[in-house]
Amino acid sequence: MKNDRILKALRREAVDCTPVWFMRQAGRYLPEYRALREKAGSFLKLSRTPELACEITLQPLRRFDLDAAILFADILTLADAMQLEFDIVEGQGPVLAKPLRSEKDISALPALELSKIDYIFETIKMIHSALKDRVPLIGFAGSPWTLAAYLVEGRGSKEFYFLRRMQYQNADLLHQLLSYLSQATASYVSEQIKAGVQVIMLFDTWSGLLDLAHYHLFSLAYIEKIAKKIKKDFPDVPIILYSKNGAMGLEARAALGVDALGLDWTVDIGLAREKVGQRVALQGNLDPAVLYASADILRREIKNNLLCFGNYPGHIFNLGHGMPADIPLENVSVVIEAVHRYKHF
Amino acid sequence: MKNDRILKALRREAVDCTPVWFMRQAGRYLPEYRALREKAGSFLKLSRTPELACEITLQPLRRFDLDAAILFADILTLADAMQLEFDIVEGQGPVLAKPLRSEKDISALPALELSKIDYIFETIKMIHSALKDRVPLIGFAGSPWTLAAYLVEGRGSKEFYFLRRMQYQNADLLHQLLSYLSQATASYVSEQIKAGVQVIMLFDTWSGLLDLAHYHLFSLAYIEKIAKKIKKDFPDVPIILYSKNGAMGLEARAALGVDALGLDWTVDIGLAREKVGQRVALQGNLDPAVLYASADILRREIKNNLLCFGNYPGHIFNLGHGMPADIPLENVSVVIEAVHRYKHF
Repeated sequence: MKNDRILKALRREAVDCTPVWFMRQAGRYLPEYRALREKAGSFLKLSRTPELACEITLQPLRRFDLDAAILFADILTLADAMQLEFDIVEGQGPVLAKPLRSEKDISALPALELSKIDYIFETIKMIHSALKDRVPLIGFAGSPWTLAAYLVEGRGSKEFYFLRRMQYQNADLLHQLLSYLSQATASYVSEQIKAGVQVIMLFDTWSGLLDLAHYHLFSLAYIEKIAKKIKKDFPDVPIILYSKNGAMGLEARAALGVDALGLDWTVDIGLAREKVGQRVALQGNLDPAVLYASADILRREIKNNLLCFGNYPGHIFNLGHGMPADIPLENVSVVIEAVHRYKHF
Repeated sequence: MKNDRILKALRREAVDCTPVWFMRQAGRYLPEYRALREKAGSFLKLSRTPELACEITLQPLRRFDLDAAILFADILTLADAMQLEFDIVEGQGPVLAKPLRSEKDISALPALELSKIDYIFETIKMIHSALKDRVPLIGFAGSPWTLAAYLVEGRGSKEFYFLRRMQYQNADLLHQLLSYLSQATASYVSEQIKAGVQVIMLFDTWSGLLDLAHYHLFSLAYIEKIAKKIKKDFPDVPIILYSKNGAMGLEARAALGVDALGLDWTVDIGLAREKVGQRVALQGNLDPAVLYASADILRREIKNNLLCFGNYPGHIFNLGHGMPADIPLENVSVVIEAVHRYKHF
């Protein structure tokens, strides 16, 4: 690997400078992405066509000095391997044709057929060969809880009350689904690794819906199962767990067996580091809205973030959530330069 | 006051049992509310007609053994006194006719005219006289940050990027608006107190958008100004600050000069109590979705919450957010009975 800063940071080893990449770095803020998207006609067409998904994954790396590539795919890709129909609706996200709400719906789930999503593994192989080990390729999947949120609710929602009714009215059924999803996700990311990704990231985007006790039961317990399976089969592949629930259960997350925690921007990264010590690396966590600011303010906020983390190994700079779609493009370079040039002393 | 449990709990004094009320206890989950709403034709008609708003405030107290009444009003009522036009759209919340986005918009704000919202003070007087000091009447307002969120964005949103662009692109302008709103809110709640409310609650519903440093600057600083003003003029009127941002800045919130912190359900109330000690009372924080559960599970979750808080004075039981609209009505009585009957030893 020519640029292995991220792999080193994930092992909490010293690096020449803090590595940086962005959640949703391949996406709508790039004019070349929007052009491809318009030509293809739909997001799903893009993510299901290896040549296009590979091209989109590589687009930001041509423009910017990023320390990682991340597979262009949807969090619901796994639903294709479960033979669940869905669409990605502009401004709304994934919408399931038939949400999973009853015992019948969940018991009728077919065995996972990863061959249905061969396009993903094909995409990974193409990216891998195009990257020529310039930077690591990050693969990803949704956490079981976050996948279940979409599958039960049927779409993004403010309250997710279909999901949350199931949580309290039929916890056993929800556990049955989560158990299916954790096995499916472990198989899915294993195949991603075999196809060539060098880092795995799990997105627990909807963990903020849960209270602390149920967060352990319904989310962390299943992430732990996945982490154990991956670490058993691929001990050298690092796992990053991104959660969008502030500082909730931070110590518990650090004890799951993952290598890094991705933080949203509402946690002070210095306080988070004090809580988790050197058990895990931390990824994050600039407020994505700072990308709208002038270069001066942007640099000030980046410096604050790096100062807060402190002069320790194990920081991967990133946003606290996905890149907004309409930021000034030049700000991306401002961030990367400011992070790469920063010296703690 | 015949039932002064809540006032005692707010002073961290011993009570015969933990007091309980619900955010949005006057609202859509009640068939008698839905009937009135249908007759009136709009939410705004209800909240602007003192007889109707008074009736709606009292409806839940006729059915349930609640320890407080809360004024039926909208968080955007203050916008009426700022001559800003808005509507409440079903399933969407408040929508401003002309969001405040430019220096011109904000500089052109007229002086606050509380006479424009006499209907609120009239409503309070009617409720006060109807209640006959049976339980305390809680008045409320949005926090400056939360009001600004609606006024700048123009409506509820997932990301609030108009607001958040202003936060980083024109912080001075946002401070100008927040300064206006904190003075306006202090005047507004002062008039509520003069009209008869016995407790003030401030809703900082959108504080979860902010990182910790900006939470201090853009939200807490202005809440502190309001708290100081109220405490100076009405030292005996307790203030509850509800925030929807988990445990973020909990110690700082406890040092603002308010009497109680309202917690959302993602904070463990026992951990929160350890952090804030006896400096403030705590209100909350059952997951609202538990109201969909069977009585057994509901009682188990309530017991967990009371156990976690511990055998200390200063707990007001509530949900961690507003009452969902479609819960089984009988569960409300289950909660109230379970809370009132609970004995720590």
